Amino acid sequence: MTLEPGLFGYLPERYNIAIQYNVFLSLTSLVHFMKETTFKREMIGNEGMVLLDTVRRLNRRGAVAHLLKLLLKTHPADMAWVFRHLSFAERKKVFNVIAQTDMVGDFLSEIDQAILLEIVQDLTPKYLVAVISEMASDDVADLLEALPEEMANEIRQLMVKEDREEVDELMQYHPETAGGLMSPDFMALDGELSAGDAIKIVQERSEESEMSFYLYITHGDGQLAGVISLRELLLHPPYRQLKNIMNSNVTSVTTDTNQDEVAHVISQYNILAVPVVDSNYNLVGIVTVDDIIDVIREEATEDFLRMAGAGKDSEILLKSTMDNALTRAPWLFASWVGGVMAMFIITFFHDELQKVLALAAFIPIVIGMGGNIATQSSTIIIRGIATGRVNMQELSKVIFKEMRVGLILGTVYGLFLGLLAFFGYAETQYLGLVVGFSVLFVMTMAATVGTFVPLILKRLNFDAAIATGPFVTTSIDILGVLAYFLIAKSLLNL
Amino acid sequence: MTLEPGLFGYLPERYNIAIQYNVFLSLTSLVHFMKETTFKREMIGNEGMVLLDTVRRLNRRGAVAHLLKLLLKTHPADMAWVFRHLSFAERKKVFNVIAQTDMVGDFLSEIDQAILLEIVQDLTPKYLVAVISEMASDDVADLLEALPEEMANEIRQLMVKEDREEVDELMQYHPETAGGLMSPDFMALDGELSAGDAIKIVQERSEESEMSFYLYITHGDGQLAGVISLRELLLHPPYRQLKNIMNSNVTSVTTDTNQDEVAHVISQYNILAVPVVDSNYNLVGIVTVDDIIDVIREEATEDFLRMAGAGKDSEILLKSTMDNALTRAPWLFASWVGGVMAMFIITFFHDELQKVLALAAFIPIVIGMGGNIATQSSTIIIRGIATGRVNMQELSKVIFKEMRVGLILGTVYGLFLGLLAFFGYAETQYLGLVVGFSVLFVMTMAATVGTFVPLILKRLNFDAAIATGPFVTTSIDILGVLAYFLIAKSLLNL
Repeated sequence: MTLEPGLFGYLPERYNIAIQYNVFLSLTSLVHFMKETTFKREMIGNEGMVLLDTVRRLNRRGAVAHLLKLLLKTHPADMAWVFRHLSFAERKKVFNVIAQTDMVGDFLSEIDQAILLEIVQDLTPKYLVAVISEMASDDVADLLEALPEEMANEIRQLMVKEDREEVDELMQYHPETAGGLMSPDFMALDGELSAGDAIKIVQERSEESEMSFYLYITHGDGQLAGVISLRELLLHPPYRQLKNIMNSNVTSVTTDTNQDEVAHVISQYNILAVPVVDSNYNLVGIVTVDDIIDVIREEATEDFLRMAGAGKDSEILLKSTMDNALTRAPWLFASWVGGVMAMFIITFFHDELQKVLALAAFIPIVIGMGGNIATQSSTIIIRGIATGRVNMQELSKVIFKEMRVGLILGTVYGLFLGLLAFFGYAETQYLGLVVGFSVLFVMTMAATVGTFVPLILKRLNFDAAIATGPFVTTSIDILGVLAYFLIAKSLLNL
Repeated sequence: MTLEPGLFGYLPERYNIAIQYNVFLSLTSLVHFMKETTFKREMIGNEGMVLLDTVRRLNRRGAVAHLLKLLLKTHPADMAWVFRHLSFAERKKVFNVIAQTDMVGDFLSEIDQAILLEIVQDLTPKYLVAVISEMASDDVADLLEALPEEMANEIRQLMVKEDREEVDELMQYHPETAGGLMSPDFMALDGELSAGDAIKIVQERSEESEMSFYLYITHGDGQLAGVISLRELLLHPPYRQLKNIMNSNVTSVTTDTNQDEVAHVISQYNILAVPVVDSNYNLVGIVTVDDIIDVIREEATEDFLRMAGAGKDSEILLKSTMDNALTRAPWLFASWVGGVMAMFIITFFHDELQKVLALAAFIPIVIGMGGNIATQSSTIIIRGIATGRVNMQELSKVIFKEMRVGLILGTVYGLFLGLLAFFGYAETQYLGLVVGFSVLFVMTMAATVGTFVPLILKRLNFDAAIATGPFVTTSIDILGVLAYFLIAKSLLNL
């Protein structure tokens, strides 16, 4: 198994050029590809950094008055971002300044849950009740759900009865359903009213309602009948009844509709808010597009983490080292078991390996190429399922296509490796054939398995993204090693 | 290297229970985790399938009148979804029916680009001009950008001069900037007008403008001065001037602002539309939240694909097998080169391997555990960067944390493997120590490298997601094999 001195010395001139050309082509496209994507900038660019530095500096100096002035000019969402990057001690001090402003409610509903729990430890329920009374009831429900149960109950007791009932009603829904996402503050009027009356009522309403661009129309004791935009309302003569001018073809969801589907309805039909009805078709709330943007972002993050077998908590970076390790341990255990199985397989082929020791050198490349093409396939399929581009009715078509891709790429890289082994390892004549054919076979199989696994998970109603990464690469390790040694055994007549 | 008959026979009773308990714990949490995530349903559920089947059936029967009736009741976005799942021949026939309806313009702006190109091949420029004249100018610009250049130019020649100029203006911007996303149809009035006049003008405007809930206020020759919502407009007495009632603290972007940042502004501040200004601060368009949802989705898909080294084309599933293979080839070539390097390393340790053949059996588990923990780390970091949860100022803190996670998990799984090797392979006494320590070392290193790579890419202003997957696993293959054999050489005194 000693390496021949000039590895490429044996190659005919033309082949040598072909390899170099291929390297050149691949590198060119890599560089081109990387360049093309470099214009992407960080979500929060320099503005965020400048704000963070300023907050830090003012806080260090104890310049409370200046800090207060800065905070009043800053959007609560930006302050929430700043908080992620402050130290524990800094957060405490800066929050004391925020607590003096009106923004405290909005701020609390913007920050990450891990930071929220840290901050509220120092607050009295009485103070929190005062803050909460200024917040929208759907934000209050989210806040109470995030708090430790004991504290949430204490706060609920101190709340005004009316507010508490509204919040309790919202809290009965699963947070990942339309009921959990919706706001009960919307504009709705009975269809018997005239357009003129409606405009008057809109003008007189003092409280802020969310998405006050749509007026929902109800009939009977509050059943959803239709919708009209504020602008359309203005276009009609004031004596017309709402029920005669409304758009009655209104898309709605029910309180238990999953947030994925709510997101789908809003993004598919390009609407700004979708009305939520209960089992009696009574209008009980609306879900607005800004909540849906957060859902889409979080779902993408969860899919990423799940795929890598790293849980699904988008705040994992804010968790303790031990929590982080515990979240990731189970899927690593699965891959440990897979590795032990690969170990048994290689141990089983002990005699063959002893005869042709060079076989060991190709283990990483055979399973590596398999693992990487499998990851590509599963990623394409998982994302295709999430964006509705995979047709679950025509699975065989999808699988055969990926199999063909595996066959093409397996042939190319198998041929490369086969030639390299043939000219590089003079010791065993057929080694080139073994490793070349193994790469071809394992890559084709890997592309197929990588496609198959997420599709099967999906068919069994599991989440397609769930730990597909570790599961697929581990399967490829086992199957790849097995196929490789079986091919070696039969081709080398061991 | 023969396996001892009773693998766990040598273990003390207590240890045996510990292993079983750990297996139990891990499996329990896996099952729990999978259950928790099963309620997620497909984006387009049964409704989509029913629609698809009905369209197919009516088309097969040639029931054009029924098909037409069904189409008129269907949202263009749903028809676009159906089209993804029809065959080439079916698409042609069904499109002939769509072409008779008013929805054809909306439909063409909803379908995937690959399908669009297929459909327009059969259409005359004259027909397309007629369709286009009914479409919003930003959709026309997108359509012309998607068409082959020759055809787009032919269509441009046939367009009314006024429309052509508007579209040409939009087409000068990069499609991934605010200029490329914006719509020029918005409501803007001069600040000198009164609220009453403004309401009258809104009522008289016949053409549809996008997001007609915000009225933008300009001064001078069209510079952005402020914004007022339609509802606020209604609340003020008719004689007040717009400039006195408008909200002048309006967030805007410029035509060349990157789409990521536009998405950030809209989602961070929960607004429905952001005004776009040119270099003279003239208001030239608005980007609406529905366009931003598409941007966020597409960016997530691109990040997924890029991470797996599968290009960045979200329509890859609709591409030919050859295009698909070509997109994936470069990063597989990189991992091929990595595999060859691992091969050289193992070949270099030829003599050591010959002395302790059992070393070969542990190659897959050492590099597999490394690869999987590295993928977890990079995924967490890449998603943390995308959602603004990684602080680029405190990189060492982030890296050390992941290193600690690697150390904890490496100790646990290294210990397991070490004990297994110690009791399973009697042949070499120190083998358990070698493989245990190798897993510990490689996992710690892998978690660190997996964190480091995306952070460094980011620092160098590359996209953090770019092919991190193949790049990281390939590096771990090389470094892991090297570390493993060096550890073996020194501990076994080979």
